Amino acid sequence: MTRPRNDTFLRALLREPTPYTPVWIMRQAGRYLPEYNQTRARAGSFMALCRSPDLATEVTLQPLARFALDAAIVFSDILTIPDAMGLGLQFVEGEGPRFERPLREEWEIRNLAPPDPAEHLGYVLDAVAQVRKALAGDIPLIGFSGSPFTLACYMIEGKSGSDFATVKKMLYRRPDLLHHILDINAQAVTSYLNAQIENGAQALMIFDTWGGILSHAAYEQFSLNYMTQIISGLTKVHEGVRVPTIVFTKGGGLWLERIATSGCDAVGLDWTIDIGSARQRVGSRVGLQGNLDPAVMLSSAEVIRSSAADVLASFGAGNGHVFNLGHGVSQFTPPEHVRVLVDAVHELSARYHVS
Amino acid sequence: MTRPRNDTFLRALLREPTPYTPVWIMRQAGRYLPEYNQTRARAGSFMALCRSPDLATEVTLQPLARFALDAAIVFSDILTIPDAMGLGLQFVEGEGPRFERPLREEWEIRNLAPPDPAEHLGYVLDAVAQVRKALAGDIPLIGFSGSPFTLACYMIEGKSGSDFATVKKMLYRRPDLLHHILDINAQAVTSYLNAQIENGAQALMIFDTWGGILSHAAYEQFSLNYMTQIISGLTKVHEGVRVPTIVFTKGGGLWLERIATSGCDAVGLDWTIDIGSARQRVGSRVGLQGNLDPAVMLSSAEVIRSSAADVLASFGAGNGHVFNLGHGVSQFTPPEHVRVLVDAVHELSARYHVS
Repeated sequence: MTRPRNDTFLRALLREPTPYTPVWIMRQAGRYLPEYNQTRARAGSFMALCRSPDLATEVTLQPLARFALDAAIVFSDILTIPDAMGLGLQFVEGEGPRFERPLREEWEIRNLAPPDPAEHLGYVLDAVAQVRKALAGDIPLIGFSGSPFTLACYMIEGKSGSDFATVKKMLYRRPDLLHHILDINAQAVTSYLNAQIENGAQALMIFDTWGGILSHAAYEQFSLNYMTQIISGLTKVHEGVRVPTIVFTKGGGLWLERIATSGCDAVGLDWTIDIGSARQRVGSRVGLQGNLDPAVMLSSAEVIRSSAADVLASFGAGNGHVFNLGHGVSQFTPPEHVRVLVDAVHELSARYHVS
Repeated sequence: MTRPRNDTFLRALLREPTPYTPVWIMRQAGRYLPEYNQTRARAGSFMALCRSPDLATEVTLQPLARFALDAAIVFSDILTIPDAMGLGLQFVEGEGPRFERPLREEWEIRNLAPPDPAEHLGYVLDAVAQVRKALAGDIPLIGFSGSPFTLACYMIEGKSGSDFATVKKMLYRRPDLLHHILDINAQAVTSYLNAQIENGAQALMIFDTWGGILSHAAYEQFSLNYMTQIISGLTKVHEGVRVPTIVFTKGGGLWLERIATSGCDAVGLDWTIDIGSARQRVGSRVGLQGNLDPAVMLSSAEVIRSSAADVLASFGAGNGHVFNLGHGVSQFTPPEHVRVLVDAVHELSARYHVS
């Protein structure tokens, strides 16, 4: 048994009792922290930072030195898999991710193969192992990946877009090609996440950042089904401890019931849904993670505390809630505001838990 | 009584019987039509086209000459009101709308005043009157405006953005200022829409393009409440005929029940919601408009027909459905595909209506 000393995060995902509501923050190791920016400057580039297990470990631990967070998440990017497939991930300053060789031709799609994690993604696995060791059993470590559909969006468009017209055109014109990409991606994500477990990840999160652009019918066929396939292939228990999985589809609030049947242990929520009504809909089947509007973090300590109190009150008494933002923390968030949030969640949530 | 000869659109909004499901297309007068691009080139710019009642009338009528649409919508922009307030609307090629003088200082916000439609938006009212005359009683004419919150997004940011951080920062830091802008906007939209009715609009649509970025709590306070206020101030019956109102919040599927209580006659749906489940939730109280994924229009005649059939079947038998896309038609849509859609909706929907 290798449960961390603070296992509130793992217990909440499995709807087991905890003395308070655990909290972590999406992108907690990131640009809002001056020490992160210093390490990144030393690395030279975002990808160099990702590719160095030492530096990735360093930035993973930075927010933990500042705040009483209940989980760590390995510093990496959601697009490491397509990069390992040879598409050439780049980060252009101020523009976000871009692939040098996006999928344009049918033969390129037919030639795709799931990368061997040990061979092509060893830098992530090494970072996972190093972070796990550095955590020394204090709090659990989260591993993650982009969802097959979200990876496909970037692989086909080459970059982020507001409407992903190329992806959706393929979806309606050549669903066979898109399914082929998604199938390869699902195989790749499964091996990648299992390798992260093998190297020390104690919980997993699948980021389906773009599933929300799909129609209700297409979401199931082109995103959810592949996440379900991944989850069915994941190692469920490692070193005698259950490894819970979180599925987060941004904009997926309408589809909660279907997401809850994916086999995941918990569902991530963005800020557009009332977490109390989400709990009514699926809270007897899965844990819930979320869902403060990240923009609240740009306001004031008072507004952050009262907004956190609203989310906790909406979830109400009982188990199964991991507090988080509804999306990644903004680079413009004052670090002090993260402390205010983390402390407020711990303090204000105790009343909702029976000891 | 001045009901149009084809009043299926108006009847469907009010959930009255029709022999088939009426259809129109958001942005049906637009860049996918070569004749539109010719008129726009003649106008010199998008704003010149909007400001010329003759040319606006010309492009409004263009799709009606091609397709058997059941409603016309006056050609204009959702941002005419802030332009009339003096913010200076511009369209930069390939970038979308931009204001020369976005709201930056508190005194600028305190100085805002609702423009007199006759004085500052006469070009839109003239276009409404001319189109109404040109339609000669064949099909109804829709007038429209952006929602107070959607206008505020552009007024504060100065342009479209993916996260509207400035607006949301104001929302959480200075809600009083944002409420002031929204209150002025709501007054402005009310007079503007009533003036459109006075000049010939037979139905109204409020486009809440950005309400979906709000949290569930903020949506009600900062977007829905102001739309409710507008609707309560609108002329309900003109020339003896009821003037129905449609509210469309893109990304608002989770909030349908609340939108249905705004006083609107129908709710516009984007493509992320199943229209059958939307009908179960609110269809006894309001009509529904939508909701084919616009990306379907980039596929093939067969896929368009079968996808339209799916939407019709999901709504099922009975009244209260206006067919539309879930968002504006893409400029890359082949015009022939719009014909396929319109004809398919008319043909395939008859079975769902008792004569």
